[in-house]
Amino acid sequence: MPRPDDALALGLDFGTESVRALLVTLNGVEAGSAVARYASGQITRRLPTSDEELPPDFALQDPRDWLDASGEAVRAALKQARAGADRVISIGVDFTSCTMLPALRDGTPLCQIDRFRKQKYAWPKLWKHHAAKAQTDRVNAVARQRKEPWLDRYGGIIGLEWFFPKILETLDHAPAVYDATEVWLEAGDWYVWQLVGCGNGLPRSTCQAGYKAQWNAHTGYPSPAFFKALHPKMENVVRDKMPGTLMAPGERAGELCDMMAKKLGLRAGVPVSAAVIDAHAGVPGAGVAEPSTLVMVMGTSSCHMLNSRIEKLVPGVAGVAEGGILPGYFGYETGQAAVGDAFDWFRRFAGEKDFAALNDEAAKLPPGADGVLCMDWFNGCRTPLMDGSLTGAFTGLSINHGPAHMYRALLEASAFGLRWIVEVLREGGVPVRRFTATGGLPHHNPLLVQIYADVLDERVAVHPSRQGPALGAAILGVLAAGKSVTGFVSASGAIHAMARTGEPRLVRPDRKAAKIYDGVYARYRALAENLRRDGH
Amino acid sequence: MPRPDDALALGLDFGTESVRALLVTLNGVEAGSAVARYASGQITRRLPTSDEELPPDFALQDPRDWLDASGEAVRAALKQARAGADRVISIGVDFTSCTMLPALRDGTPLCQIDRFRKQKYAWPKLWKHHAAKAQTDRVNAVARQRKEPWLDRYGGIIGLEWFFPKILETLDHAPAVYDATEVWLEAGDWYVWQLVGCGNGLPRSTCQAGYKAQWNAHTGYPSPAFFKALHPKMENVVRDKMPGTLMAPGERAGELCDMMAKKLGLRAGVPVSAAVIDAHAGVPGAGVAEPSTLVMVMGTSSCHMLNSRIEKLVPGVAGVAEGGILPGYFGYETGQAAVGDAFDWFRRFAGEKDFAALNDEAAKLPPGADGVLCMDWFNGCRTPLMDGSLTGAFTGLSINHGPAHMYRALLEASAFGLRWIVEVLREGGVPVRRFTATGGLPHHNPLLVQIYADVLDERVAVHPSRQGPALGAAILGVLAAGKSVTGFVSASGAIHAMARTGEPRLVRPDRKAAKIYDGVYARYRALAENLRRDGH
Repeated sequence: MPRPDDALALGLDFGTESVRALLVTLNGVEAGSAVARYASGQITRRLPTSDEELPPDFALQDPRDWLDASGEAVRAALKQARAGADRVISIGVDFTSCTMLPALRDGTPLCQIDRFRKQKYAWPKLWKHHAAKAQTDRVNAVARQRKEPWLDRYGGIIGLEWFFPKILETLDHAPAVYDATEVWLEAGDWYVWQLVGCGNGLPRSTCQAGYKAQWNAHTGYPSPAFFKALHPKMENVVRDKMPGTLMAPGERAGELCDMMAKKLGLRAGVPVSAAVIDAHAGVPGAGVAEPSTLVMVMGTSSCHMLNSRIEKLVPGVAGVAEGGILPGYFGYETGQAAVGDAFDWFRRFAGEKDFAALNDEAAKLPPGADGVLCMDWFNGCRTPLMDGSLTGAFTGLSINHGPAHMYRALLEASAFGLRWIVEVLREGGVPVRRFTATGGLPHHNPLLVQIYADVLDERVAVHPSRQGPALGAAILGVLAAGKSVTGFVSASGAIHAMARTGEPRLVRPDRKAAKIYDGVYARYRALAENLRRDGH
Repeated sequence: MPRPDDALALGLDFGTESVRALLVTLNGVEAGSAVARYASGQITRRLPTSDEELPPDFALQDPRDWLDASGEAVRAALKQARAGADRVISIGVDFTSCTMLPALRDGTPLCQIDRFRKQKYAWPKLWKHHAAKAQTDRVNAVARQRKEPWLDRYGGIIGLEWFFPKILETLDHAPAVYDATEVWLEAGDWYVWQLVGCGNGLPRSTCQAGYKAQWNAHTGYPSPAFFKALHPKMENVVRDKMPGTLMAPGERAGELCDMMAKKLGLRAGVPVSAAVIDAHAGVPGAGVAEPSTLVMVMGTSSCHMLNSRIEKLVPGVAGVAEGGILPGYFGYETGQAAVGDAFDWFRRFAGEKDFAALNDEAAKLPPGADGVLCMDWFNGCRTPLMDGSLTGAFTGLSINHGPAHMYRALLEASAFGLRWIVEVLREGGVPVRRFTATGGLPHHNPLLVQIYADVLDERVAVHPSRQGPALGAAILGVLAAGKSVTGFVSASGAIHAMARTGEPRLVRPDRKAAKIYDGVYARYRALAENLRRDGH
């Protein structure tokens, strides 16, 4: 048992292209950090095992990559920290979601069985796999027709990227895979299951289950009657193919098994937390322990999360789950589908290598971009309209405008989209009092954060950690290790001690700009209304 | 007197940046052609005589450039034709419009007088000078209030670029210039006046007067009562400051004077036609002598002209003038404000050096550009809304779209704008039966012409002459020279003989594409309605 000031918490942050391993002390000092890329990355063209071309909208991953890359990253982080394996006292894991796969009861992914190696529907589907459109429509149609009580918790609509549409897609296209599957599970849960040894029962995260699989602490998953209406074969999918024990992030899933200790270069027996969705790990990772602070995890897309003492069903809000983010609170999840992605699309389009020139030029323009207005639905609208078929727009263009006008309008549209979400929450009775920005974007793009502050007319704290989710995962690992190991008596104690490395940078709104934006925001909402009407 | 097959007709085509001299035989063979740039080009930053910065929206020219550049171009064209001055039997002149200036009774431009050399309001205003916005509003307000009968001939609204708003602007800002002005006139008329010698009376073109100065063969200019209501000092502007004789293009304005013969390297005494607006010269230049053919002169902006036996006042159509284009017909003028200009804006924006890659990629996309829709109001809407404050837009965008999608949508929007104009004419009772495209764009961009044909569901003839306006000017010069010199007994005889060098290329509509475009056009019109409502 190391002394408390020697102790290191390990956070593993599984992203879309790579995994990050972070080693941090119990008072929040980063000791080592390393990133390892997945050998196959996102599999969108063809399987590593076959020459067959994948259909459009496919995005798969190789489970071997998760094991190999995490082993590489943890060893590199230990080396950077000049630390022995014995200093690591806890492990927390966050993962993209809903990234999911079919497996056997011993944990073997179906895609590693000979007969399914070349079967695309047996491979893990990445969160952004978008080929289950027809199945999503069916899930929603059946749920609406049956007036399923859980529908309201998800703003009235189930997303294209969620758990059950992805299962139904496989059943529709490859019933043999469905039949052979003994366990359907999230990739985060699969990885934690590997860590604690697959003989020891399967710990399932309430976070993933609550936000992506319509699970609720009081009522469980949707009923067999619902699943039967969806597809006769699915009636008992939960009982027969979803074994496991539901656990909140920060609860102890078990201890590191010998095999995985060897793979990661760690001691066996280290406590492991239940998994958490990457974005949700950003909340403790940004040092936010108190309710009513909106934590904006900003990257290729944005996930805005909020803990609240109040439970409200807000139309258009993608999910509310009790204890979904932190124990003791109702966790609200909202999001914007194209943020960094859209900026990058525009940058390529304008023929720029990086954002330096665009940011410089855009910063010189006045709020409102000289009349250019943008609708930020370049990948559909997540919150509050939950409609992936909506599209983006630019209006107010003249031949006197340059790329910087359109780029500034794009940043402003992103801020307007956020303001809309905040208004929906507040009008729904959920207080939003403070704003914390985290993720890569706020650090790389100060102009964007200033525009967010001006459009919201609120102060925005930019959290100094550049690896919010990894830090959040490490904190949840510490909670799982328990008071006797770490000395922390509460979640907020651990969060405040570990995620307060330096003061957050506070960005204040410019009142003159805020006033102008009130008018531009009204035009943005009117444009949204027009485009939405035209789209249908 | 040269033999008819030796005779050369000279057409001078004064554009925005340069003048073209074309020498052509009476059976339409091009003998020589040359372009000379204006030394000062468009004057938008500061006068050649002063360091003072010009206000935005200013666009001026230097009259010396018109003389110098035309001298250079004519000499170069003669040299290319290996022709002596004695072979040139006629001169026709087309000019941008409304490009206008204040002058003295002896023809001296006010900007060449010492006391006004540094006075910006004394310089010629180029057609695209846009600083008379407030004055245009006043002209329209007074006209509407007084229910001026000529307002209907211009679709109910007077344009920002026209003659009287530009005069009123000078009166508002520089009354001393207004007071000192003895002659307000179009640049085309000024140049013809120079050609025929300023001692010999001022020939004014009915084309410029009819389309840009509310003149009409039956009722003349607006009344002194109207001008008095506009500004007390303007009451007698026509009587006191607009001397001259109105003549149709193709009528003989006079004969080349000694001074200008020397400047151009020609013989004195050659017959000279009254001036014509550059776009309007494109009608005879494209070999169109018959009514009901829409001649689309396509360049940075587009001017679509039509001769008809029928006189109708069509709301939204910028002008109808009897004999305004060819004798014996009612000439209708409509236009699109941003065509080549907008394509070029987009090309620069997408970081492309030329259009090759964009055209290649766009040609591979299906009609409708995969859902991307564009509104082509990047420089306002000329016909039919006559509103320079309207702006362009793109809708239907997603991160899966590239620049080629937006570019194709832009070409399609240009075609939809034209289709709208054609529908307005037809619904107004003016038949439109055939379509001829001329100007630079149709030759450089075959994809654009195909899209036009598909969207209109009509055949489009592309006229082989690459210098339509210059050829039209030369033909009008031949008409002015008269039957005894040229042997042509009618305008249509001259047009058919001189503008039929090779058959026009006929572009046929693709019926499948045309069907798809019907649906996309409906969406375009709905978008126009939305944007127009939001803009006001």
